[in-house]
Amino acid sequence: MQPDHDSIRAIKWHEDSLYLLDQRLLPQEEKYIKYDTAKNVAQAIQQMVVRGAPAIGITAAFGVVLAARTRIAESADQWSELIQEDIRILAASRPTAINLFWALEKMQHCILKTIDNKQENIIDVLLAQAKKIHQDDINANYTMGRLGAELLDANSGVLTHCNTGSLATGGFGTALGVIRHAWSDKRINHIFADETRPWWQGSRLTAWELVQDNIPVQLIVEGAAASLMQQNKVQWVIVGSDRIVANGDVANKIGTYSLAVNARHHRVKFMVVAPSSTVDMTINSGVDIPIESRGEDELFYAAGSRIAASGAGAWNPVFDVTPASLVDAIVTEKGVVLNPTPDKMQRMMDT
Amino acid sequence: MQPDHDSIRAIKWHEDSLYLLDQRLLPQEEKYIKYDTAKNVAQAIQQMVVRGAPAIGITAAFGVVLAARTRIAESADQWSELIQEDIRILAASRPTAINLFWALEKMQHCILKTIDNKQENIIDVLLAQAKKIHQDDINANYTMGRLGAELLDANSGVLTHCNTGSLATGGFGTALGVIRHAWSDKRINHIFADETRPWWQGSRLTAWELVQDNIPVQLIVEGAAASLMQQNKVQWVIVGSDRIVANGDVANKIGTYSLAVNARHHRVKFMVVAPSSTVDMTINSGVDIPIESRGEDELFYAAGSRIAASGAGAWNPVFDVTPASLVDAIVTEKGVVLNPTPDKMQRMMDT
Repeated sequence: MQPDHDSIRAIKWHEDSLYLLDQRLLPQEEKYIKYDTAKNVAQAIQQMVVRGAPAIGITAAFGVVLAARTRIAESADQWSELIQEDIRILAASRPTAINLFWALEKMQHCILKTIDNKQENIIDVLLAQAKKIHQDDINANYTMGRLGAELLDANSGVLTHCNTGSLATGGFGTALGVIRHAWSDKRINHIFADETRPWWQGSRLTAWELVQDNIPVQLIVEGAAASLMQQNKVQWVIVGSDRIVANGDVANKIGTYSLAVNARHHRVKFMVVAPSSTVDMTINSGVDIPIESRGEDELFYAAGSRIAASGAGAWNPVFDVTPASLVDAIVTEKGVVLNPTPDKMQRMMDT
Repeated sequence: MQPDHDSIRAIKWHEDSLYLLDQRLLPQEEKYIKYDTAKNVAQAIQQMVVRGAPAIGITAAFGVVLAARTRIAESADQWSELIQEDIRILAASRPTAINLFWALEKMQHCILKTIDNKQENIIDVLLAQAKKIHQDDINANYTMGRLGAELLDANSGVLTHCNTGSLATGGFGTALGVIRHAWSDKRINHIFADETRPWWQGSRLTAWELVQDNIPVQLIVEGAAASLMQQNKVQWVIVGSDRIVANGDVANKIGTYSLAVNARHHRVKFMVVAPSSTVDMTINSGVDIPIESRGEDELFYAAGSRIAASGAGAWNPVFDVTPASLVDAIVTEKGVVLNPTPDKMQRMMDT
């Protein structure tokens, strides 16, 4: 199944500019913002105009293209040194999703190659690389959609967390790609989505994507997930990831780990879906993954209105780490790893 | 410790009227609404002007006093029959908290006694009974505060859920009473509170109460509770209850069960604090507790603004059931039950 999901694209390159769908405004407003500098792209990532690990990586790649244009105009001789500052700024935008660093490294490699080969059409080469990163991600999503769907029995109920669809990726999605594929294969008969506090990725983004696809979805508060499992309404929890490390530990949106603990308690299966660009084989254990904390205001305000009592504090880590021991399957475009171990992860990455 | 927490009262009887602090408006606005009819009191409970199992029971008791006044004026002979309709309406306001039915039964018993004894000062007798229910609840809270606090080692971190303080009870609180007591005993050094979707009882009410007491509190999204435990930041989860049944199973605000599963996984202790009026010995197992579901809009809107994408559905049970096997301690004013069983529950209730 490779349906046309071109209707939703978080990231577009059009007439020499980058356009990002402002995900802070969804679902109320569909508005693209135009970007022409790497600095503004970094700010867009930091402020979550665009979010989702694969989408952040793709965005950063296009950010390097914009930076190259500016730096070449500045100095045709020294641009490849000057651009290092832009790459640093892009790399500093968010810490947890490894795809960001993965994409910047790909672009860095491409920069060095253009210099070694004394290429003149540098922008064209870099743009082609960024577009390839984007297209490869879309292709990976279709592959993962098929591989993940095959793990589900017919008429399964599934629960997903955060947003892992077209908005979080090049297009189609990771966990949501599996859900889309399995829905069209009639392997899924009921989809529940956590609303995903504090940023409402479930209520605002996942629900919006599924409604556009005419796929029914029921939102739940995170606290209701355990009841859902207790009442046997779901057989799988399917989530994405911001970084999977060498032993199979998984960083993902805050709340994921709680789902994994509850899934195991209720004998519900737990699937992580992410492209191999999300796998960081340089880190051996999840405890070493840098976990971003964001401002307290994300808990204090909702839709611009103050919710919380003044004077209270907040603890707001926005990712958590699920140990490999609670993961039943990791699905990448390179293949499926059941009950992940370091060896199995290495074999999958060597594929 | 019996500090003066009279500053916060959810329920007041003043010059022949019932006043309820409108908890829908907190913490932005402190406004009492005056009630003179049982029908309006029932509506206040249904619409959550007042909430929290013990507070609902106390409110309903005063509702019966208001009903008696109206019905006696209507017919001095038939008032005790006519008032049955008011009691039915009050009983139908919310289904899960047993304290509501417990309090109505107490008032019913009092009605029959006034008739048997041919008492003339009926209103005075009923009002005295309602006030006794209120005062007994406050006294029970102070007792539970002491009993629960004794279970904690010095410098513990605790996590609580929903609101179980003065606003949810006659005053002082159940789980929050234990936390208040243990804080002043220096047994607690860090308090975390779930924001408690969808009604924000944690952010709006628990945080407001603790700030008023100058007790520091940090809010978390429900999804962060597992990380909190993983990082060893809390040694106890302390919650209230809307109904505890004969085998020790516990109904409480949605999200409680997920905390219990995570607490057990992380070897964090799980304490339930509720007056004996919350214990329903007529039901043997938690599966038979009626669980209220509320409207989908509670998930779709926040602070009056639409959050969720149009076209999505929602599953919104507002309570869940935690099996006794995950409960380390049940604390009532009659005593503490560790690792509850039907026998231990019976012995505690017979005290």
